[in-house]
Amino acid sequence: AGDPALGKSKSATCVACHGAEGKVSVPMYPNLAGQNAMYLEQALQSYKKGERTSGQAQVMRAYVANLSDADIADLAAYYASLKP
Amino acid sequence: AGDPALGKSKSATCVACHGAEGKVSVPMYPNLAGQNAMYLEQALQSYKKGERTSGQAQVMRAYVANLSDADIADLAAYYASLKP
Repeated sequence: AGDPALGKSKSATCVACHGAEGKVSVPMYPNLAGQNAMYLEQALQSYKKGERTSGQAQVMRAYVANLSDADIADLAAYYASLKP
Repeated sequence: AGDPALGKSKSATCVACHGAEGKVSVPMYPNLAGQNAMYLEQALQSYKKGERTSGQAQVMRAYVANLSDADIADLAAYYASLKP
């Protein structure tokens, strides 16, 4: 499982769209705070592999391109740990 | 915008995986309660159009195949209205 503290340290580029605490002000983006880690991990892997192609998928794919599996697990653990 | 009350009336098939109030017990599925309606609508449309292909996308595609745009908007409004 990922490490939330490490995930927080890797979340700088997520904040612009997903908010400082995983809560969004722009309604086209999803809130992440309190989302299930396993789902977040699967979603990030899907973006990375090009298995989501609409919405912000191209943006997401670029952002996650350089993330390792451990990075993705850490980010998922971090956002899952936040209060919705 | 969708109608939350109508959305609730259309949510019977969502409950099995996404929980009675949009909160999930199985960690591979996302919580929906309090998610942004615009994001939920985009996600459902993406599943319907086959623009998500991994995770539970095939299951989701089958579930949303017969939903109209209005149905999707109502469901998005309903889940967005729930407390996270």
